[in-house]
Amino acid sequence: MTTSAREIHLAARPKGWPTDETFRFVDTELPAPAPGQVLVRNTFMSVDPYMRGRMNDVKSYVPPFQLDQPLEGGAVGEVVESAVDGVSAGDLVLHNLGWRSHSLTSEFTPLKEVPGVSPSHFLGALGMPALTAYVGLLDIAQFKAGDTVFVSGAAGAVGSLVGQIARLKGAKRVVGSAGSAAKVDHLTGKLGFDAAFNYKDGDLREQLAAAAPEGIDVYFDNVGGDHLQAALDVLNRHGRIAACGSISAYNEKDLPPGPNNMHYFVTKRLSMRGFIILDHYDRLSAMIGEVGQWLSTGQLVAEETVAEGLDNAPAAFLGMLRGENTGKMVVRL
Amino acid sequence: MTTSAREIHLAARPKGWPTDETFRFVDTELPAPAPGQVLVRNTFMSVDPYMRGRMNDVKSYVPPFQLDQPLEGGAVGEVVESAVDGVSAGDLVLHNLGWRSHSLTSEFTPLKEVPGVSPSHFLGALGMPALTAYVGLLDIAQFKAGDTVFVSGAAGAVGSLVGQIARLKGAKRVVGSAGSAAKVDHLTGKLGFDAAFNYKDGDLREQLAAAAPEGIDVYFDNVGGDHLQAALDVLNRHGRIAACGSISAYNEKDLPPGPNNMHYFVTKRLSMRGFIILDHYDRLSAMIGEVGQWLSTGQLVAEETVAEGLDNAPAAFLGMLRGENTGKMVVRL
Repeated sequence: MTTSAREIHLAARPKGWPTDETFRFVDTELPAPAPGQVLVRNTFMSVDPYMRGRMNDVKSYVPPFQLDQPLEGGAVGEVVESAVDGVSAGDLVLHNLGWRSHSLTSEFTPLKEVPGVSPSHFLGALGMPALTAYVGLLDIAQFKAGDTVFVSGAAGAVGSLVGQIARLKGAKRVVGSAGSAAKVDHLTGKLGFDAAFNYKDGDLREQLAAAAPEGIDVYFDNVGGDHLQAALDVLNRHGRIAACGSISAYNEKDLPPGPNNMHYFVTKRLSMRGFIILDHYDRLSAMIGEVGQWLSTGQLVAEETVAEGLDNAPAAFLGMLRGENTGKMVVRL
Repeated sequence: MTTSAREIHLAARPKGWPTDETFRFVDTELPAPAPGQVLVRNTFMSVDPYMRGRMNDVKSYVPPFQLDQPLEGGAVGEVVESAVDGVSAGDLVLHNLGWRSHSLTSEFTPLKEVPGVSPSHFLGALGMPALTAYVGLLDIAQFKAGDTVFVSGAAGAVGSLVGQIARLKGAKRVVGSAGSAAKVDHLTGKLGFDAAFNYKDGDLREQLAAAAPEGIDVYFDNVGGDHLQAALDVLNRHGRIAACGSISAYNEKDLPPGPNNMHYFVTKRLSMRGFIILDHYDRLSAMIGEVGQWLSTGQLVAEETVAEGLDNAPAAFLGMLRGENTGKMVVRL
């Protein structure tokens, strides 16, 4: 017996911003699961910045998407049919074959529902963005209580969790940058940031220095470029940078100039470390344990922007790249 | 009873390169040592790149030199008169009040002569440059056997030791850059570097990639700027950078643009850490033990450029900044 499924394929590799020509909707029939596989009806899928990189045909930390094949990405769903011992129809699972209504896969993580928390959060506040925030702040940047933390892209899925985890772990001060006045209000009004600013409002370095008058100890970098330069200026001695992303450059055809104040690495004994969250899944259960508790008690706010239906996934992806989401962008299937 | 001494004072803060107007020779009389002090007749003094920074009136990791006061810097000498228990006339000591024939000081490190090794090496292959190389390579860059190491400024006091320590500790390949064909020959011919190139000979990235066809795992950065950019291009996954100095920028009035390939920090999981050797003197005895043995057995070559006489110290300092020395530049007093 087969199951009707709808998939989104990569129709063409975009140059710069993706367009309608980038995506193709394909209706197909999936066979019953082979031994070791489950058939999953997806209920939520994720759209994330790194997916733009996988649309290019270049060597990177994850292989590029293949032309005329389905796109991939985090998804949560309910097992429809199982050929895996110990997994039954109705079980909740997390896997990486999103961008389709149903997925056949042998690689998945069983999930336990957290009471009162939507399963979509396993794609956000309890999923990859949360693990990115948790590992980047605690392991990579070696955050400790009493640090002042600055995070760029602070209203995004990762950034909004970085700031809140820092607050809940005893930061002296949490500062965020974002791209609109509404996001800035959200950061200080709802997420408990001590200060936030709109990077479009004026000189980045001056705004950061004003928001963190005693300097910063940790910079969680989602943006790169001029944000990194401003952070290098304002970082205190022994300051630490977690390099998580360079969203500012993902759609640029020519690379912008780099920071010209790298000499601060020596004089201020700074350190910077880049990381890819795929290397750090050994920290998943620690993160779910700690962040899950904050979520269930309401100490941590997990905002989501939910797009409705697979047909809206390309628009949701583009909206996320343009920064139209607040918190994690997911698609309900 | 007083002792006649000759000192070199800071007469004016240089803009760009130091000139004759920067220095003033002053003859003076020193009193007998007060309790806790020793009077030292200096036999060797050091000239180092960081001294240029101390000539500026800016806050940095060490306070600026004071106008109309003696310059300071590493020196080795023989105690002439002691008011310290356990220290006698004739003892060898290391201290930081160089740029003068005699020094009165309460802050010094007693030294034991290493048989067959000139005491000047306590300013180089057994002193601050060696500690810089040792700590930067082993602690900051977390070197491990099998790594390919690239060091810029490789013919300098620090760089020549970085390469040799890496070789003696089991590097897979050691590559250095320098500013003349003679230095390049010295690196591969005498110091045991596997490859070296003259950065003035052509495209830095291409020369580095050719010298390290399987990439590099550690970059020991003495230079910054375009060297850092080339290293970021060629570093392997999980590569590590020890940021030791930016000699290329020390005399520039406008900062050159920074590397535009900082996104490699994320995709290649790179890390970079700056350090100041003053923070790491707890590692001095470990370094002297290990490097001292290599020196005494001839496994490690410690080149020196020796200038003669205090009157030649300013010229030696400028020559060092211009890269005219091979190995450590010292002045014999």
